[in-house]
Amino acid sequence: MESDSDDQLLESDRFSDLAIEMSFSNNSQNQPQPRAKYRNYHSIDWLRELSKDKIRHTRINRAAASRSSPTKDKINKIVDAASGWIVVLLIGAASGLCAGVVDVTTKWLADFKRGICTGEHGSFWLNQEQCCWTAYSTENCTDWRKWGEVFGASTDASLFTADYFMYVLFGVTMGAICAAIVKYFSPYATGSGIPEVKTILSGFVIHGYLGICTLLGKMFALPLAVGAGLSLGKEGPLVHVASCCGNAIARLFPKYKHNQAKRREMLSAAAAAGVSVAFGAPIGGVLFSLEEVSYYFPLKTLYRSFLSAMTAAFVLRSINPFGNEHLVMFYSHYDEPWYWFEIIGFIVVGILGGLYGAFFNKMNIMYCKFRKSSKLADWPYLEVVFTCVATAILCFPNFYTQMAQSDLIAMLFKTCNYERWEEDICHYTLNSNNTKHISADDMIIGGLSPEIVRSIVGLLLAMLLYIVLTIVTFGIKVPSGLFIPSMTVGAIFGRLIGLGIQQFVLNFNHWSVFSSYCGEGQVCVNPGLYAMVGAASTLSGVTRMTVSLVVIMYELTGGLLYIVPLMVATMTAKWIGDAFGHEGIYDLHIKLNNYPFLDNYNYSNLACDVMRPRPEDHSQSFVGVIRIQYSIKIEEMIKISPYHGFPVVLSRSCMRLIGFVVSQDLQIAIDELRMQSQGITSQSMAHFTDTVPIQKPGEPSIARLSHILDIAPVNVSDVTPMALVLEIFRKLGIRHCMVLRHGKLQGIITRKDILYHIARLNSYSGQTD
Amino acid sequence: MESDSDDQLLESDRFSDLAIEMSFSNNSQNQPQPRAKYRNYHSIDWLRELSKDKIRHTRINRAAASRSSPTKDKINKIVDAASGWIVVLLIGAASGLCAGVVDVTTKWLADFKRGICTGEHGSFWLNQEQCCWTAYSTENCTDWRKWGEVFGASTDASLFTADYFMYVLFGVTMGAICAAIVKYFSPYATGSGIPEVKTILSGFVIHGYLGICTLLGKMFALPLAVGAGLSLGKEGPLVHVASCCGNAIARLFPKYKHNQAKRREMLSAAAAAGVSVAFGAPIGGVLFSLEEVSYYFPLKTLYRSFLSAMTAAFVLRSINPFGNEHLVMFYSHYDEPWYWFEIIGFIVVGILGGLYGAFFNKMNIMYCKFRKSSKLADWPYLEVVFTCVATAILCFPNFYTQMAQSDLIAMLFKTCNYERWEEDICHYTLNSNNTKHISADDMIIGGLSPEIVRSIVGLLLAMLLYIVLTIVTFGIKVPSGLFIPSMTVGAIFGRLIGLGIQQFVLNFNHWSVFSSYCGEGQVCVNPGLYAMVGAASTLSGVTRMTVSLVVIMYELTGGLLYIVPLMVATMTAKWIGDAFGHEGIYDLHIKLNNYPFLDNYNYSNLACDVMRPRPEDHSQSFVGVIRIQYSIKIEEMIKISPYHGFPVVLSRSCMRLIGFVVSQDLQIAIDELRMQSQGITSQSMAHFTDTVPIQKPGEPSIARLSHILDIAPVNVSDVTPMALVLEIFRKLGIRHCMVLRHGKLQGIITRKDILYHIARLNSYSGQTD
Repeated sequence: MESDSDDQLLESDRFSDLAIEMSFSNNSQNQPQPRAKYRNYHSIDWLRELSKDKIRHTRINRAAASRSSPTKDKINKIVDAASGWIVVLLIGAASGLCAGVVDVTTKWLADFKRGICTGEHGSFWLNQEQCCWTAYSTENCTDWRKWGEVFGASTDASLFTADYFMYVLFGVTMGAICAAIVKYFSPYATGSGIPEVKTILSGFVIHGYLGICTLLGKMFALPLAVGAGLSLGKEGPLVHVASCCGNAIARLFPKYKHNQAKRREMLSAAAAAGVSVAFGAPIGGVLFSLEEVSYYFPLKTLYRSFLSAMTAAFVLRSINPFGNEHLVMFYSHYDEPWYWFEIIGFIVVGILGGLYGAFFNKMNIMYCKFRKSSKLADWPYLEVVFTCVATAILCFPNFYTQMAQSDLIAMLFKTCNYERWEEDICHYTLNSNNTKHISADDMIIGGLSPEIVRSIVGLLLAMLLYIVLTIVTFGIKVPSGLFIPSMTVGAIFGRLIGLGIQQFVLNFNHWSVFSSYCGEGQVCVNPGLYAMVGAASTLSGVTRMTVSLVVIMYELTGGLLYIVPLMVATMTAKWIGDAFGHEGIYDLHIKLNNYPFLDNYNYSNLACDVMRPRPEDHSQSFVGVIRIQYSIKIEEMIKISPYHGFPVVLSRSCMRLIGFVVSQDLQIAIDELRMQSQGITSQSMAHFTDTVPIQKPGEPSIARLSHILDIAPVNVSDVTPMALVLEIFRKLGIRHCMVLRHGKLQGIITRKDILYHIARLNSYSGQTD
Repeated sequence: MESDSDDQLLESDRFSDLAIEMSFSNNSQNQPQPRAKYRNYHSIDWLRELSKDKIRHTRINRAAASRSSPTKDKINKIVDAASGWIVVLLIGAASGLCAGVVDVTTKWLADFKRGICTGEHGSFWLNQEQCCWTAYSTENCTDWRKWGEVFGASTDASLFTADYFMYVLFGVTMGAICAAIVKYFSPYATGSGIPEVKTILSGFVIHGYLGICTLLGKMFALPLAVGAGLSLGKEGPLVHVASCCGNAIARLFPKYKHNQAKRREMLSAAAAAGVSVAFGAPIGGVLFSLEEVSYYFPLKTLYRSFLSAMTAAFVLRSINPFGNEHLVMFYSHYDEPWYWFEIIGFIVVGILGGLYGAFFNKMNIMYCKFRKSSKLADWPYLEVVFTCVATAILCFPNFYTQMAQSDLIAMLFKTCNYERWEEDICHYTLNSNNTKHISADDMIIGGLSPEIVRSIVGLLLAMLLYIVLTIVTFGIKVPSGLFIPSMTVGAIFGRLIGLGIQQFVLNFNHWSVFSSYCGEGQVCVNPGLYAMVGAASTLSGVTRMTVSLVVIMYELTGGLLYIVPLMVATMTAKWIGDAFGHEGIYDLHIKLNNYPFLDNYNYSNLACDVMRPRPEDHSQSFVGVIRIQYSIKIEEMIKISPYHGFPVVLSRSCMRLIGFVVSQDLQIAIDELRMQSQGITSQSMAHFTDTVPIQKPGEPSIARLSHILDIAPVNVSDVTPMALVLEIFRKLGIRHCMVLRHGKLQGIITRKDILYHIARLNSYSGQTD
């Protein structure tokens, strides 16, 4: 305890004021500070990192400014200025390349389960589509042979059995290899990675999560997981893959290697590139990065994200993995208009999407919690294999689940070609044989043909199966995305609703509400559009994104025409979903994994309610505080300190804040001092002023530590509303904030304090509900 | 001067601490504060406005929360929650409507200068295009008659003279009417309005700038200004028109009427809707709002901007002003690929665009400064009329300047139809008569035909004329946009460069660099693409936008194919332009008009260098500070205070900060107290604590003012780098910030201080350069 009297205190006040004055005029801001590394599972201090970068930038510019400076410095400056753009260009190119490799491999593996390309023109490395191109016979492709045919099965039953067996066998094999890669090679390659990327972008440090091992592991495991037939997509993980590329490339440049905040700007651009290649929607990708994952998104990052996303899309388009000049399997281009009465249909689809999203999120989180608490947690490998077996066995018998989910979506999005039936879902019974120009009269009489009824039943079964499978699959230890399975469910019910509305309108087309829009004998309603709207609405329900979704869909359809249906459905789905809980699946998984992500704050507390030490603990002294002159025994304090550092005050009784010092810096600085000068002992006084009192003979040397003191820590008054404090934390990206009352240090708020506080409030409000 | 001794000070300190404690527990945050209005040409305090909104929101929710609350309150809550979405929907619809009206009127007026629709099928209210549709004869449209024909001129010379005379006459008349509207009806309708909208969105108050008068004036004057043939566009002003719509609609809802910050969120959405309808590019509009004009752009505003922009585009498409299902006159759809060797051409175009932008910006600002300082400033009306006369006389003789600029751009963007020549610029001399399938061999022999040479000369003259005209036009007292004139210049030189490259490649198509890309006899280079790239590059050079430009162009062409050329050119143009000065034309005009816009900050000052009072003025006491107990004579202080308010401190000698009080609130509160209670005289003490000492008999009553005290003003340490302070000002949108040293109030920084400081530094660095 301090024993200074008030007078002495004021005296020392004045002396220190002088000392500090000297220190400020010395502008210690521009001195290089010891480089403290962030520990794993800790948050970075954006403000500190960005000011570090500013110092570095000033140094380079100053070195290059004078005429006499060597050419090296001038080149250095140009390289430094251009490096950001170079990095995003490279990230874009690398992401496009990786996506191309994944796309091609995935398609081949998915087809390999069902057959192989042989014969005179074909080669085994071609997938079904390519194989049939080579054979110049898309209709009756003989080069592509199912496994049953390969093995020479003669009867239908044995053909079926052989196909079934090979389907299950290959599915399980691929799943097992995939799980092995994840288990033994890159444990971080599991899941979609979006919640983690989001957390990392918010300033959290997870060493290795974006490493080369993860990149390679995910790139190899992802096609296997999709190929195994599991109910998952490759779109989400591509964001993780692109982020890994971004991290690897950014680390090549010292500017980004040594600065966590700057590197995160590049990662935002990489996330945009990831979505850009996943959906072939560069603008949608940028908005996804902005809306869903990024935390700190200055205008410059926006530019760079664009560059990155567009480069990625361009590279992928040059690779042309789907052979159709488009970047996705389910690119659609409708020409037919929609009519205002259909709005009701879109709203219904939106409501269903929102309900599905809420249901899925709840169930998936429940299952994940169950997995964590039950014995399943000990056998992740077996769980994957078992899921593969179950998926393969259940999926093969149904035509709609046997095909890849992306093919199913593409099929459901399609407008029926009324001049030539291709699929069961388009197989309307016609009244006349005039298939050239179908009119409503031709269609209504027969109504639903047996083929259509069969397809409806098949689709319903597929939907139910996929709902269950997706719930249990998302969270197992393989790379798994949610976009495609969610879209599948939405596309199925959207298509079915569209079909229903189409038939209804055809049957009652004399009603004035319909006849005013649809001419006589016109097929007004396009079920394919409903499938697309349904896919958007389930995605919106699950992820709670809206803008980027609409833009992605807008880029897929390439027209303003369907903006209104898409907007209506996604907004409805979001509102309905929000009624059951405000968080999207990624936020729920962030919570589930206890990542420290600062979200919005809707409570009316003040800073003094959250800070530590709590004001009610009058007895407990402020553990972490150090005086401007302090015994060097602070080393012992570092070990017990609950914060990353210590507020430095004039004296313990007056508690006037001088600055803040980070524990790790302190440790490094003291170690360095010990190495350099002899007189530093554990009895030494640490001085945070620039001028130190003259050393008396016999006393140990004084440790000068003013250079590691942050003399301008962010501070708030103790009655500041927490909403504002959170705003400051989020917008300035700080790790800690001093709480003052009338200039006296009262406490300190860290990110963890806020998260803890929010968690406590949530659990409290949860109990009272 | 205070005479308290230190002891007394500490005593009073303790007492006040207690008093304040009471005040805090009372949570005075949630009390309604007197509603101070912002004065004209002052900045708003975002933080204050947003916290005001939070209080309002909480009140409405609390009223609706309990089961016993009346239905009115519950409806109130729903209306309140939905009002933001309703407002943006209405804004979108209104903007689309206004844009439709402006588009149709503009086209008619522009055509009216040259002729009129008469005859049996035609009616005078149709523009040339519509007139010729009605007549079912686009080729030889007889219903559309030039003025010379109407007056029955017989010889070619008299026809020309009559046309010329009417062209000039109508041009000048429209210009004069337009200038009269601006002069007598809506003085704010002048210019593009984007610099002002940008300033308003940053928190500045300009009463009436977004009023109904301005809206109507601009909507009437804009078509007249374009119709007069002046070298200006209607695209920029449409942003202003949409913002006026936004303001008018937002004011219908109390939530936005009484809250300047919330209303600005709606204005951001309106700006997006404006660009959306100006270019038919909803996503580009949102990004324009984000990149160029907005200041405070939370995610929710992004959603709303999208809704608004898309609604606007949808409404405009339903109006269909151009009769071609597209939203702009120069919608282009190319199918031909570009080749990598063309990148050099795009870079050249980009460099020229950047140079033009830098040149134009410099010249325009110089001319605007000359106008302000010369006698021209006294005769704005005559200047407009004179400009109209000069423009009309100079433009008529040249085919390319006689037509509307948007038509010229559309023509330049077009790919030549090699099967049927339509324009001079496509009139290549052919070797053979085989015009069906043009090969390179057909074209190279003849090379440039006389028609092409004529068109090149015409275009060059048109470009020079437009450059000069635009420099003198942008800034006169009519509504005037810069997009179209900039695009015209870029499209012309782009087209000419494209033509040159095309001819070069045709002549040297045996070179391996060309022959490896272009097949034998293939016309590889599309000059129309260069025109588009040129238009984008001049726009980028003038405005320094990049992302939104690329996206706007992407939406105009509707394909990923041209993203790379566009990106290369706009980026090059921006970099070249930035080499001559970092500011775009809007920022330059903001500066020219001395609007207080906080931009980035690149100096290494500290907060204490900027704050007032200056630390070097030791003699000057802190004028604006008031003690926690203060004589009510503060009224006199309000008049002389240099700030919007006063920091409240414990005592003048200890300077411990208690809070901040806004002058206007203080004035209102004192006036109210005078009205209500009798005992308040100018001898009364004002107490900012909740508990006040017991009133002694004979003494005047005590004015309790704790409810107007902001007890948590934002504060920084005096050694905080100014870059961080500016970040805090920008991100939190505050008007003032307290500067503390070790808890003692040292000074105050306001937005004006920062702007003044930046201006001083700029002028200083300008002198030393």
